[in-house]
Amino acid sequence: MNNFVHDIPTRVLFGKGQIENLNDVLSVYGKKVLLVYGGGSIKKIGLYDKVMEILNGNDYTVVECGGVEPNPRIETVAKGAELCKEKNIEVVLAVGGGSTIDCAKAICVGAFFEGEDYWDMVINPVRNAKALPLVDILTLSATGSEFDNGGVISNLKTNDKKGAGFTFPSVSICDPEYTFSVNAYQTSAGSADIMSHVLEGYFSRKESDISDGIAEAILKTVINNLPKALENPEDYDARANLMWASSLACSGMPEYGKEFTGWSCHAMEHQLSAYYDITHGVGLAILTPRWMRYILEKDPTTLPRFIKFAKNVWGLDGEGEELAHRGIDALERFFIDNGIPMILDEVGINEEKFEEMAIKSNTNDRLTNAYVPLDKEDVINIFRMCLKSK
Amino acid sequence: MNNFVHDIPTRVLFGKGQIENLNDVLSVYGKKVLLVYGGGSIKKIGLYDKVMEILNGNDYTVVECGGVEPNPRIETVAKGAELCKEKNIEVVLAVGGGSTIDCAKAICVGAFFEGEDYWDMVINPVRNAKALPLVDILTLSATGSEFDNGGVISNLKTNDKKGAGFTFPSVSICDPEYTFSVNAYQTSAGSADIMSHVLEGYFSRKESDISDGIAEAILKTVINNLPKALENPEDYDARANLMWASSLACSGMPEYGKEFTGWSCHAMEHQLSAYYDITHGVGLAILTPRWMRYILEKDPTTLPRFIKFAKNVWGLDGEGEELAHRGIDALERFFIDNGIPMILDEVGINEEKFEEMAIKSNTNDRLTNAYVPLDKEDVINIFRMCLKSK
Repeated sequence: MNNFVHDIPTRVLFGKGQIENLNDVLSVYGKKVLLVYGGGSIKKIGLYDKVMEILNGNDYTVVECGGVEPNPRIETVAKGAELCKEKNIEVVLAVGGGSTIDCAKAICVGAFFEGEDYWDMVINPVRNAKALPLVDILTLSATGSEFDNGGVISNLKTNDKKGAGFTFPSVSICDPEYTFSVNAYQTSAGSADIMSHVLEGYFSRKESDISDGIAEAILKTVINNLPKALENPEDYDARANLMWASSLACSGMPEYGKEFTGWSCHAMEHQLSAYYDITHGVGLAILTPRWMRYILEKDPTTLPRFIKFAKNVWGLDGEGEELAHRGIDALERFFIDNGIPMILDEVGINEEKFEEMAIKSNTNDRLTNAYVPLDKEDVINIFRMCLKSK
Repeated sequence: MNNFVHDIPTRVLFGKGQIENLNDVLSVYGKKVLLVYGGGSIKKIGLYDKVMEILNGNDYTVVECGGVEPNPRIETVAKGAELCKEKNIEVVLAVGGGSTIDCAKAICVGAFFEGEDYWDMVINPVRNAKALPLVDILTLSATGSEFDNGGVISNLKTNDKKGAGFTFPSVSICDPEYTFSVNAYQTSAGSADIMSHVLEGYFSRKESDISDGIAEAILKTVINNLPKALENPEDYDARANLMWASSLACSGMPEYGKEFTGWSCHAMEHQLSAYYDITHGVGLAILTPRWMRYILEKDPTTLPRFIKFAKNVWGLDGEGEELAHRGIDALERFFIDNGIPMILDEVGINEEKFEEMAIKSNTNDRLTNAYVPLDKEDVINIFRMCLKSK
């Protein structure tokens, strides 16, 4: 096992009705709140009203920063950060999914940013930068942003989409009931995102019994519970299992002690959604089985990991390459069965920008310094495997 | 899934050479250190010298509090707390295993205790009590004290042994190399302790895919790595897997969302070690399989959990009670194979105090408010099952 640091100071209040603790956890930080949220979904489910009732009932000054995009943009970060400065905001409250929480994290750091261009904060993030405290209320099981310090921000002017470490939420309120209204498509896409966070670290040069075991537990939890949540969107236990799985998947715990892998599918997918604004989890689902088949062929030393995946995650018996492929096929079949469009054509992507996206995928050497290093041609080949014609 | 709160602020620096960060993490809190440790083992492995070299080389004022007992006593807590008050200690550094860290946690709280009798702190612990910051260097994989806020303190005058919540370590330095010199007996006893922390929550009225999966991952990690550590005490990966397993086992993560179970074996074992000062993990290993057989017979509704245990943890096939018993037998066989004395006679315990210990086992209703509630006669029966004559 390699060395690692576990450092997640976030307190998670998990379960039904935890919003009743909102005033207690917020008031510690002050009474001037920036309320960050996305589109109208939190209004539809009555969560916006509930939050405002608590805030107004306890004499908070609330400044709103709504309209955060599904792939949050640097302009929105800038807008939120400026509001914090102008209005002397003391604490940021994010209500929504990963995009909203990501954006809020960047705003918390942005509130103290003194440079010219907020995009610099994303390109050159400062470790342990000064930040406003962040409290969030989660409404989507997917990114794990409620339990890490990372955020992914897009710059549409330059077609850049980049992840950076900003700040940990101080408190995350995770009530599975807020995900009852998430539609089937987004539930499946979110689940693919959870699985990808685990798979990116699972395929590594180094073994760790404990971390691999946790990774497998998370994967099996999603495999068991996503179909239940689709069949009955108000299945509390299914939604709860997916929600806590999402937090743990991105916590580092499934990969502690293992070799850094580069997170190749994320590196490639960020380009798909930067250029085409597609749902992140769908992009990951499309890429992952193709990436698996490609690296298994390119580097046969990966075979034992694929066999472990087939056996421990899918419960398959057999041996060799045949077993490895059945494990990958099981993953692809799982995504298809749960309604995820599994070819790029279906989400409006064609060959046109493959080369440009392939070059950008290697930002920070994430593909050359990977489990199986990939060059531009490899990435184009993988993108092509995701087209209808294949 | 039931509601839960995840709140572990402890930073873990895991792996080889992490002690090089000791000055950085300590100096944040001040330069007046209380050094808490147990017997001579940290001197034998050179760790004491290494720590003193770092402290002396960076101008710390060090006050020593050595000689913490394997079942730490309230008198030692009192001694340490008085030293903190007298010497204006700013931070406590615990170097050792769970007993030392438990004792140090109580000292951290004791430093601000204003009552007459320090034992009151244990009987009536104050939630989030004011405490000195604690940094620890772990030398034994067992109790998980490096990653929770609990401590178990003994009062030999009254034959009481009681766990309480004190304070979380701010930083835990976990270097598996410090466990290379732990002998076979203590390595096995520590592993039994890790497994017990997981098993106490695993057998619950409520299911949670994600938490059960994590529980099974920890159990399988111990099952796979304990024999390796015994065969080659310097097998770094085996020691590392056991060490991180110990931290996670007691973190709450294997039981989040499940019904509270009372931790029956711990409740009973605390009496064995309070009265006879035996190694905690050995007491747990002796009790656990007998407790399992007893509750399976007493309450047949527990059968599905035992079947899950046999299948998912031991990889056994079959069905019904026969399978359940093979799972329990596998656990007992595992302890025997790894050198744990599995009858009370072998650790010097006979029937004499069974009744007295059985009554005390139910402190805080831990046995009546349990997975399968047990009364005094039940406990005596379970104790009897652990005797040679059975």
